[in-house]
Amino acid sequence: MNSQEMRHPPLQFAQWTHAMQSRIEQVLNEAMPASTETPETLHQAMRYAVLGGGKRVRALLAYAAGEFCGANVVEVDLSAAAVELIHAFSLVHDDMPCMDDDDLRRGKTSTHKQFGDATALLAGDALQSLAFELASSEQCAIGAPQKVKILHCLAFATGSRGMAGGQSIDLESTGILLSQGQLAQMHALKTGALMHAAAMMGAYTAQDTDTKKLEAVESFAKAIGLAFQVVDDILDAEADTATLGKTAGKDAEQDKSTYVTLLGLATAKSLAQSLYQQALASLDDYKQEADMLRGLANFITQRQF
Amino acid sequence: MNSQEMRHPPLQFAQWTHAMQSRIEQVLNEAMPASTETPETLHQAMRYAVLGGGKRVRALLAYAAGEFCGANVVEVDLSAAAVELIHAFSLVHDDMPCMDDDDLRRGKTSTHKQFGDATALLAGDALQSLAFELASSEQCAIGAPQKVKILHCLAFATGSRGMAGGQSIDLESTGILLSQGQLAQMHALKTGALMHAAAMMGAYTAQDTDTKKLEAVESFAKAIGLAFQVVDDILDAEADTATLGKTAGKDAEQDKSTYVTLLGLATAKSLAQSLYQQALASLDDYKQEADMLRGLANFITQRQF
Repeated sequence: MNSQEMRHPPLQFAQWTHAMQSRIEQVLNEAMPASTETPETLHQAMRYAVLGGGKRVRALLAYAAGEFCGANVVEVDLSAAAVELIHAFSLVHDDMPCMDDDDLRRGKTSTHKQFGDATALLAGDALQSLAFELASSEQCAIGAPQKVKILHCLAFATGSRGMAGGQSIDLESTGILLSQGQLAQMHALKTGALMHAAAMMGAYTAQDTDTKKLEAVESFAKAIGLAFQVVDDILDAEADTATLGKTAGKDAEQDKSTYVTLLGLATAKSLAQSLYQQALASLDDYKQEADMLRGLANFITQRQF
Repeated sequence: MNSQEMRHPPLQFAQWTHAMQSRIEQVLNEAMPASTETPETLHQAMRYAVLGGGKRVRALLAYAAGEFCGANVVEVDLSAAAVELIHAFSLVHDDMPCMDDDDLRRGKTSTHKQFGDATALLAGDALQSLAFELASSEQCAIGAPQKVKILHCLAFATGSRGMAGGQSIDLESTGILLSQGQLAQMHALKTGALMHAAAMMGAYTAQDTDTKKLEAVESFAKAIGLAFQVVDDILDAEADTATLGKTAGKDAEQDKSTYVTLLGLATAKSLAQSLYQQALASLDDYKQEADMLRGLANFITQRQF
């Protein structure tokens, strides 16, 4: 029995996912200021935006990549929480009237509809700060050089050369027909950058990860980040609002280029499959230490919501 | 001649201020993505919000505290830039229609009036990320443990227990008469937290700063952070819009509690003077290494804009 097996009993992927989703919920719950702490409304809005919802795909990516590189799950906790906070903040701001103006998120009223625009704006801002606060805190049980790497990776992925940049391109391209290359570039930033960061943060958590493993995570994360968006576009075109937990059909309504509008449904589905195979191929040289990453690739590309 | 004098020729405070203001402008200019880099509009908005304006009080605090603790000015550059980016992001979001709805900032059209609400929202978000990206970058020439301390200090001061929390209390207290204690608490978060962080970040930059010096910076920064806000309230009540470079008289118009509405003009002015004396007293045990901090205290409390 090697150290990998000792640290992590051979749970099935579904059990692991369930355990990690409960775990991140608890980590986030404890890491966030109580809703009774002043300023109460702001803290209530922050908790509302973060807790009790979402598939936690980014946290799962961080945990699975950490596992793959030999990190202890406790060491990954605050990086996983940080990346979920960044994701939650982006959703809060994205739903605001001046952006996508969406009233529904994760099956409930979106934050600005619940708390007003000003509080939603501040809650998003404060969630971003909290992400960096957690990843740099003394409670984050890893060395300073690893923390700095993780913080830099997360900050880069969040900013204008990552997620915010992708959202900006998205805004500007509404009503314009993008090429597949342009669409891929936009999504590589808008969705891919943070998923990539999630996986890399997990990998950086482990000490002395060799370059080959880091490259495997990198290549895996790029394929799966893009696959996630292709599947999102397919689901938006196919699903109804109840299943999706957010307003369905908005892309077409807002005249946005998607993989479905660009390639048609059948070709978009083939693309998702081929990206899935690409993600798996990145892990070809690895055995069971990569099982959770493989499971995640399947989870992300085969999801129905 | 001690090492302090060797590192820093005895410039007059005005010359030092001018030199540091030019310096931070150049650091920010180089650290920000070019306006020709995709996505252009977002990068233009970010640069518009940050460059060519402001007194750079927070950067000056970081530089002066760094100087006081024996740091090299180059080592402080990216911390000073980071705190200015956080300040700039907060102004962009604060001016938006759902917040203070202000059309004028630093003598020019505010960012959302110039670029639209969606781009302003994203620019603010991306400026926050960029702050953490710079302070964690390899270009930031200090050790990893100091970086982590600086990043944590900045993140804490920016979030719901700092600046964002103060803005939230401010929002909620419009139309309500606050006590002086409540007002001080609100401003300690809204303005004071980031000024405090600026000084502490400068101090943390230096290696092996002794506890006594750190405490002196802490106590100085608390007094001067509050003094800054008291003077702001006095200026808002007294000045006209042209001198101020932002819309004057907004506090009264928006029915906000200020030190002037609470204490009257004369008592508010005495309070500013007494905080100035308190800031100076924190530095009593120090000689010329504290001259720039002393000059800043004077600059902040005697300013006319």
